Amino acid sequence: MKARIFVTLKPGVLDAQGKAIHHALEGLGFDGVNDVRQGKLIEVDLADGTPTDKIEDMCRKLLANTVIENFKVETSSEADPANRPTQL
Amino acid sequence: MKARIFVTLKPGVLDAQGKAIHHALEGLGFDGVNDVRQGKLIEVDLADGTPTDKIEDMCRKLLANTVIENFKVETSSEADPANRPTQL
Repeated sequence: MKARIFVTLKPGVLDAQGKAIHHALEGLGFDGVNDVRQGKLIEVDLADGTPTDKIEDMCRKLLANTVIENFKVETSSEADPANRPTQL
Repeated sequence: MKARIFVTLKPGVLDAQGKAIHHALEGLGFDGVNDVRQGKLIEVDLADGTPTDKIEDMCRKLLANTVIENFKVETSSEADPANRPTQL
């Protein structure tokens, strides 16, 4: 099974990387951008039947710094083709 | 409107960060982990009605290195509460 873990900075925590992206987008002439926040996407291939509790435990112990970051876990038994990124 | 952009390394591209996470998870006693890949999640707050084409243009020009990375764009007019990360 596959799990997708989204780790994002909590609201109010300064996101320097997001600000840099925002500034660069403006520099490239993309207007209408109000805010940019950067987070992490961690894709984990796990043994079938791994409970979500265990994945959340991984997040708390290693993947996210819960003082400044939130996380969200999404699981799917098989990679959904609709969720595949754009192939270039 | 909000756009969520997922940037992931293409299959076959060495993911050193993912390997480090995999190793650390095993070190913490989490078994059953077959593979870990790390990508980026970029949340952009845009002017309403920004076309997806423009967001994909941002990805090609700045957010993703399309030689080694794929990207996927998801848009929503309002942040869906179901998509909010776990509040801790």
